Amino acid sequence: WLVIDSEEVPKLQKTFRFKRYKDALDFVVAVGWAADEQDHHPKITIEYGKVTVEWWTHVINGLHRNDFIMAAKTDEIYRSREDTKPRIS
Amino acid sequence: WLVIDSEEVPKLQKTFRFKRYKDALDFVVAVGWAADEQDHHPKITIEYGKVTVEWWTHVINGLHRNDFIMAAKTDEIYRSREDTKPRIS
Repeated sequence: WLVIDSEEVPKLQKTFRFKRYKDALDFVVAVGWAADEQDHHPKITIEYGKVTVEWWTHVINGLHRNDFIMAAKTDEIYRSREDTKPRIS
Repeated sequence: WLVIDSEEVPKLQKTFRFKRYKDALDFVVAVGWAADEQDHHPKITIEYGKVTVEWWTHVINGLHRNDFIMAAKTDEIYRSREDTKPRIS
């Protein structure tokens, strides 16, 4: 994760790559549901082949412990999707 | 739809509002599937309460007829979701 400065608000940002567009959509939905469950909503940008997720805490215009927890959770969702894919052994 | 100029590339941009975050996710998936079917992928940004969709044609760095068709399709998806919601009569 990068700490970016977006309009003077620090945010955690990471871009995830996907070969299949539908895998990107599945990832967005999984991150979105996890976010909604915590009532903590990131900015998510979907483009062909990649999804960018940005976490920050609106009320403090900055980073809170919860953002780091949700960033780790986002990685976990990405990894768990990788694990379920068929592999060539 | 607005025609915006993003890094000298004209794009069709529109922001759609949602009361429920999960409705926003459903909309993104519906637009995403329609996009993938046409192999023409927009930039979609999801934030709390809103989804921004941007259509343009990468290979010409500009707008093509297909972008206008997909913009209309996006509106249709948004409207059809509205129609299926329960109403207070």
